[in-house]
Amino acid sequence: MTDHGLSYFDDYRPGTTYDCGSVSVSEAEILAFAKQFDPQPIHVDPEAAAGGPFGGLVASGWHTAVLVMRQLVDHYLPEEASLGSPGLDEMRWPAPVRPGDTLRVRASVLEARRSLSKPDRGIMKTMIEAENQDGRTVMRATAINFLRVRPGA
Amino acid sequence: MTDHGLSYFDDYRPGTTYDCGSVSVSEAEILAFAKQFDPQPIHVDPEAAAGGPFGGLVASGWHTAVLVMRQLVDHYLPEEASLGSPGLDEMRWPAPVRPGDTLRVRASVLEARRSLSKPDRGIMKTMIEAENQDGRTVMRATAINFLRVRPGA
Repeated sequence: MTDHGLSYFDDYRPGTTYDCGSVSVSEAEILAFAKQFDPQPIHVDPEAAAGGPFGGLVASGWHTAVLVMRQLVDHYLPEEASLGSPGLDEMRWPAPVRPGDTLRVRASVLEARRSLSKPDRGIMKTMIEAENQDGRTVMRATAINFLRVRPGA
Repeated sequence: MTDHGLSYFDDYRPGTTYDCGSVSVSEAEILAFAKQFDPQPIHVDPEAAAGGPFGGLVASGWHTAVLVMRQLVDHYLPEEASLGSPGLDEMRWPAPVRPGDTLRVRASVLEARRSLSKPDRGIMKTMIEAENQDGRTVMRATAINFLRVRPGA
């Protein structure tokens, strides 16, 4: 069960927003992630990044995405019910994430419907948003998740 | 310049597909990534995963995504021209990635148009696909990228 009391598909109500806590990211973390997965100059080379489109080093959008994912696992997707995700729609990074930023993550239930073909589960659409310490949105996406219905429900 | 001779926005032709090489993933890598960013049982606990929806441990979809991204940085997005991405649409994971899988990545130019508001760049849409050693698609997404036009063009 998550800290919001979410255990099964049945517990999610469209229109409800859940605070998924916050996470900070350091320059060392930005560099380490990007060296492995997204080694573009704006993410791995502070000097080159200073003269680049963002005027300084910024996190890979994928790094932002996985930091957000961790918050969802910790606060929104209960271990006993999560059956994976077929994907996401309209993932956007409207503003950059910079070293030292703290991101607050929120998840809002957009849709929740029982599966017609697999009655043990429901399909949920969630609007995910992450905002920095200045209130600017740095990531937004619509996630699709499969969740078990409550046993015996 | 990439190994396909791609340097600037002007070099990308809608309808062209670029091979972005292949990448393998081990169980140790799947576990290490997921422990940090997506610690759900299907990604971090081989025993629990064996009884789960995929009948065994599978990579986080985010891990698949960043492995694919690395191939794009190495083969598709030239350092001299890449100005970042506002996001992606319709990211899907149609089949799981398992320990030992090898993924081949392809990028197909869907659209390429000059920016009206910022004449130094173009906006490109790319269909990204990753397929495993059995020919099954494990990831698909439409990426949006900003790329510099060739200086003086």
